Amino acid sequence: MKRRDFLAGAGLAGVTEIATPALAQTSPTIRWTLTTSFPDYLQVIASGAQAFVQAVRDMSDGRFIIEIHPAGTLAKPLDVLDAVRDGRAEIAQTALHYHWGLQPALVFATGAPFGMNAREQNAFFRFGGNDLINELLVDHKLIAFPAGNTGCQMGGWFTRELRSASDLRGLRWRLPGLTGKMLTRVGVVPTASSRSQVAADLGAGAIEAAAWVSPVDDEALSLWRVAPYYYYPGWWQGSMAMHLVFALDKWNALPKQYQAILRAASDVANSDVLARYDALNPQAVRRIVEAGAKLRPFPQEVLEACWQAAQAEYREMCEADPVFQRVHDAYMSFRNDQYLWWQVAEYPFDNFAIRQRSKG
Amino acid sequence: MKRRDFLAGAGLAGVTEIATPALAQTSPTIRWTLTTSFPDYLQVIASGAQAFVQAVRDMSDGRFIIEIHPAGTLAKPLDVLDAVRDGRAEIAQTALHYHWGLQPALVFATGAPFGMNAREQNAFFRFGGNDLINELLVDHKLIAFPAGNTGCQMGGWFTRELRSASDLRGLRWRLPGLTGKMLTRVGVVPTASSRSQVAADLGAGAIEAAAWVSPVDDEALSLWRVAPYYYYPGWWQGSMAMHLVFALDKWNALPKQYQAILRAASDVANSDVLARYDALNPQAVRRIVEAGAKLRPFPQEVLEACWQAAQAEYREMCEADPVFQRVHDAYMSFRNDQYLWWQVAEYPFDNFAIRQRSKG
Repeated sequence: MKRRDFLAGAGLAGVTEIATPALAQTSPTIRWTLTTSFPDYLQVIASGAQAFVQAVRDMSDGRFIIEIHPAGTLAKPLDVLDAVRDGRAEIAQTALHYHWGLQPALVFATGAPFGMNAREQNAFFRFGGNDLINELLVDHKLIAFPAGNTGCQMGGWFTRELRSASDLRGLRWRLPGLTGKMLTRVGVVPTASSRSQVAADLGAGAIEAAAWVSPVDDEALSLWRVAPYYYYPGWWQGSMAMHLVFALDKWNALPKQYQAILRAASDVANSDVLARYDALNPQAVRRIVEAGAKLRPFPQEVLEACWQAAQAEYREMCEADPVFQRVHDAYMSFRNDQYLWWQVAEYPFDNFAIRQRSKG
Repeated sequence: MKRRDFLAGAGLAGVTEIATPALAQTSPTIRWTLTTSFPDYLQVIASGAQAFVQAVRDMSDGRFIIEIHPAGTLAKPLDVLDAVRDGRAEIAQTALHYHWGLQPALVFATGAPFGMNAREQNAFFRFGGNDLINELLVDHKLIAFPAGNTGCQMGGWFTRELRSASDLRGLRWRLPGLTGKMLTRVGVVPTASSRSQVAADLGAGAIEAAAWVSPVDDEALSLWRVAPYYYYPGWWQGSMAMHLVFALDKWNALPKQYQAILRAASDVANSDVLARYDALNPQAVRRIVEAGAKLRPFPQEVLEACWQAAQAEYREMCEADPVFQRVHDAYMSFRNDQYLWWQVAEYPFDNFAIRQRSKG
């Protein structure tokens, strides 16, 4: 209903309309630009930016308008923070681990290899973790809030089965940056095929494995035709958190009301994206398996070899960089506490549910 | 900063202040009352109502003020929906399963026995589930939004160990309503000791077991002194979702801007409460165990007996009430799909994390 209907309406018990005080000011009208790292074909992530923009518009009564510029139009996907710093945009939607060149500890803003699951990551953010991330960003004149998560991703597509840790030696595997670096320690050859090339590269044998995202995103690529073994879990992305990153000076110049609206709208997007992945993944994984993909868990021995490689890499990075060490230690200590509790209530609850389900 | 500083400030690149249009109206000033079912000693849940009220105040620039009335002052904890319907309050913070006398299907708004975990429940809410709940409430002139979750609760305190399903026979166990009803099928005698009585009742042998909430709430009761066995998981509350319930006519009379603000603020509370439980539970469970509690998993046979009892009860309730059946079927079908996916990525990720953690 329009506000004037509301003002004219009856039944206003509990709603007290008081005279506009002499100093009352309408909130300012603002138009901002959002640049994103994520291509539109990652539909659920794209819906997060849309949910954010819509919530801001609704909560500001149409006064705060944010225009989304698709990935690659205003800045290249990995250059979105530059675009915010040089004023081409006020907001970037991104995964902060893409920017670990700025500061390696930013990987913990997204969800590091063998890190936390999405819910634990959210608890970390709300109780100190996101402040820690913003300490890394303040020198770059940026401030960020969590605004989406894929949940635990898949391990990706393999042309043949992995039977032991020795199968990792020489394996040409499309993997994200830090994870690829870690796995060189066990002989993996990390690669970086683009989306348009990945099926051809797998088909031609140029690569033998490719991590992508989650079933809802993987389905469109039909990679089972060239690499039928679909491995899980994607332990390097037990959580892939996204952030909305703001230009700090423009953030600071906002009325507190608008800061509150932007933060709450980020929360809306944060919950929306995860819920949407969760709601859509079950049907997607079912269709993928029906189409011919063969689901396989990573063998325990493979996971343990990867774990050792990850710990060795973390140790080296901690020794090289006290900032990395500080964030790593805070993140891993929070994670270890989370799993202390997780193994008591959540995990046994899920365990029984899964057992009973498999019985039919 | 104050808004007049903002208006006077420099550095407003990207912020366009336009002249107040002739028709511009300031948003109305509103004062509402919130009544809650939850006593203040459930501190995390209480913090959810506070986070909601604060977010609404901030996002409305101080124009929308909500006053929280503590449990029992304006209405008894189980009468809060009546208070909203008769105009004593505009909002109730409650768990809708408390009100299953109105409509038994409301149990699915909170998280039913052997139902979903908190994250799955949130996906359900966002993709049809909460609309289904509001269809149950519309005849009562109410509308509700999720605004908090405890996560999976504990199974509670036992004076002796449970070794088999036959130990359930005659067991006097403090339990919530529907769960108690289900477990009469396996011989449990459900009871309802108040908080101030539960330790004395356990100590005197009047009851032999008592479910409470989660470690962060359980700790204050020190029940390990009289019932040292602390069982998990609380399968009747894999999710305990709370809602904020609004008087429908007052909700409908609000400007759309304020509806958007109330919904986003509910989302803020929803995420806040779960994250706070997750952040605080690990230290609480550690202290509880150090104080002498003995952690025990429910034996598989006990869980299966309870599962059978729950399914039998659900079948009877479905046969008796087509509305219950419709919501039950939607909820359980969503749940089964969720666990199809959960067992692929999330569960194996958590499994490996817990294994490695226990190795040290």
